[in-house]
Amino acid sequence: MTKEQTIEHYLELLSSKQPVPGGGGASALAGALGSALGLMVGNLTVGKKKYAGVEADIRGHMAGLETLQADLLRLADEDAEVFAPLAEAYGLPSETEEQRAYKEAVMEERLQTASLTPLKVMESVIRMLAILEDLEQKGSVMAVSDVGVAVQLARAALSGAVMNVYINTKSMKDRDRAAELNEEAYHMLTSGAARADEIYGKVLKRLEN
Amino acid sequence: MTKEQTIEHYLELLSSKQPVPGGGGASALAGALGSALGLMVGNLTVGKKKYAGVEADIRGHMAGLETLQADLLRLADEDAEVFAPLAEAYGLPSETEEQRAYKEAVMEERLQTASLTPLKVMESVIRMLAILEDLEQKGSVMAVSDVGVAVQLARAALSGAVMNVYINTKSMKDRDRAAELNEEAYHMLTSGAARADEIYGKVLKRLEN
Repeated sequence: MTKEQTIEHYLELLSSKQPVPGGGGASALAGALGSALGLMVGNLTVGKKKYAGVEADIRGHMAGLETLQADLLRLADEDAEVFAPLAEAYGLPSETEEQRAYKEAVMEERLQTASLTPLKVMESVIRMLAILEDLEQKGSVMAVSDVGVAVQLARAALSGAVMNVYINTKSMKDRDRAAELNEEAYHMLTSGAARADEIYGKVLKRLEN
Repeated sequence: MTKEQTIEHYLELLSSKQPVPGGGGASALAGALGSALGLMVGNLTVGKKKYAGVEADIRGHMAGLETLQADLLRLADEDAEVFAPLAEAYGLPSETEEQRAYKEAVMEERLQTASLTPLKVMESVIRMLAILEDLEQKGSVMAVSDVGVAVQLARAALSGAVMNVYINTKSMKDRDRAAELNEEAYHMLTSGAARADEIYGKVLKRLEN
């Protein structure tokens, strides 16, 4: 499992030419880092008299971030799990007509499966951004810069994950299904990145000096 | 050391309210993840007949990325090292005139030191983006989506690190020095983010389907 590895070992595996982990897993991990920073902001806010009025909201956000972090770590593993069978399918023989037809059917199914995992990463990030937006407003002023970093990590997870949707849909034969998946991804990318930039802009403004 | 921790443990520390690791360390780590993905692209390119003509360039980039990754991991540690004395300085007594003067002098020095580490992270990212730009053009076409993810991780490192420059310069009394550091950071942020967006745009275009 991704989370059980040391950072050094994970970086080594990521750097290597072996098929996993790759960009999909790294995107999910960036999202997990963002959720951890959001949790830090929560932890620096709760229990303080000054923020007693928003404590219930913050606790709710923290529970949400815990769930998202666990989901993203699971998706980092899932990304590896769905890529291995796809890499294997690329290597299937394609000499006879029958082999080609079989390979194409297997590829199609695995490409589609492999494109769903980064879509789930993107959905998690969209939910995370809603939480971070509220944390920017209600969280401890001492940790506002960390909200900004969390937003950027979420943005990287989003715009990293979309690459892994597109790289898979690109090879799909079912162009209608590919277009459907691409549209879903594109919508999340554009709306999510805009939202991230908006929250980040607010943080930048507060740090102006 | 950051790299010796498991991902799970690092996320736990990052989530907690203890002062380090925080957004500065997480930004440096995002940069290290980006460099690892750049290395993966290199590893998937070298030794292939198709890319023999660019092999020397790729090998040069890989050496550069190795150095940047080591630098960024070191900077993640450094970020923690410079923050601890700063957090301590915040707690110095300020009852007498003498205590206040002493606290102010100590704070000023430690704020300045603490703002230099994220600036070094930003410098590393700027160098990484130059490498990724060339990898987008010369690296294995099979790994182009990973260049896109690497670019986004680098962008997150850059725009995350700048937060930790601003949060420190904001409290500095020497406003000339603060303005100097801010200007340096702002220049790297704007030029680096634009460059990242440009490379990412090229990758997106290549994945269009």
